[in-house]
Amino acid sequence: MAHIKVDDAVPGIRSLVLFRPETGKPLYELATVLLRGPSQLSEAERELIAAYVSHRNNCMFCTKSHAAAARYLYGENRYLVDEVLNHLEGSRVSDKMKALLNIAGKVQISGKEVKPDDIEVARSFGADDREIHDTVLIAACFSMFNRYVDGLASFTPTDPKVYDEMGKRMVESGYTFPKQTKP
Amino acid sequence: MAHIKVDDAVPGIRSLVLFRPETGKPLYELATVLLRGPSQLSEAERELIAAYVSHRNNCMFCTKSHAAAARYLYGENRYLVDEVLNHLEGSRVSDKMKALLNIAGKVQISGKEVKPDDIEVARSFGADDREIHDTVLIAACFSMFNRYVDGLASFTPTDPKVYDEMGKRMVESGYTFPKQTKP
Repeated sequence: MAHIKVDDAVPGIRSLVLFRPETGKPLYELATVLLRGPSQLSEAERELIAAYVSHRNNCMFCTKSHAAAARYLYGENRYLVDEVLNHLEGSRVSDKMKALLNIAGKVQISGKEVKPDDIEVARSFGADDREIHDTVLIAACFSMFNRYVDGLASFTPTDPKVYDEMGKRMVESGYTFPKQTKP
Repeated sequence: MAHIKVDDAVPGIRSLVLFRPETGKPLYELATVLLRGPSQLSEAERELIAAYVSHRNNCMFCTKSHAAAARYLYGENRYLVDEVLNHLEGSRVSDKMKALLNIAGKVQISGKEVKPDDIEVARSFGADDREIHDTVLIAACFSMFNRYVDGLASFTPTDPKVYDEMGKRMVESGYTFPKQTKP
């Protein structure tokens, strides 16, 4: 049960933004711009960064939902998502994505962990300022979302099918602010 | 020097939101609602939570600027800010604030660190759902802002006077989106 009185049938962050829509709206707007807005990083790559950081933060709700969204977006290359979550170094993502995910993993620990060498490696594989910026901000954002969801102990479904549906909806409908009804 | 090409004369997060206003705007809106909007927690208390989390994350820019804002808001009780940053348990803030700051400190580590007992202690000193929610979200937000600012190595002034001015401006003008000029 959540630490505060929210609709316990509504999972994860949705119950929290319905509890406090004034803060929920800019949070959803941020997710929309960052994960769905124009970017050289594909939506699949951005969802993978989100899932990777959430996995490192041990946030089950965010990991499962964003991994499901990333798998849906990667289509026939969906195997990449589990490869990255299980063992980044051995995964078959591009060297550029590996370098960006390495930066995201450092941000998950602390911003100060990101060293000039990490940035240089990413640049050597073609990452530009905007991609580096967005990677750091996605990793920072999920360091927030993960803490918000778990810090208030919001409802985390355990049925994998729920997340498959959720991932599909996150891709097809985007981060639309939830309506005040049960899902 | 920052990891990406931003105006190095502009300090901290301001240089980053000017680099990417599309994400900067919802970030500023979030800070405005959360730290300046209607709340049972005073602006001083909310800035103190922000400074406390930033201090624990060792983010010098956010700690110094939000501590300055909190000192300005606390007025003659400004000594409370440094007491909390130096030794929360021995500080003279109210028991309710101590319980909320304890929750914020746990969120800084991980959302999962917040236990029902921590919530119960806060409730026993009069904290309600909304105050607990806002405390967790402020702590989660600064876990993001700290990583964003340090993960891109944005400019961190060292002159304490700069932060006194900044804190005053953050209180008097609020979190207004910066103009594309040097400060």
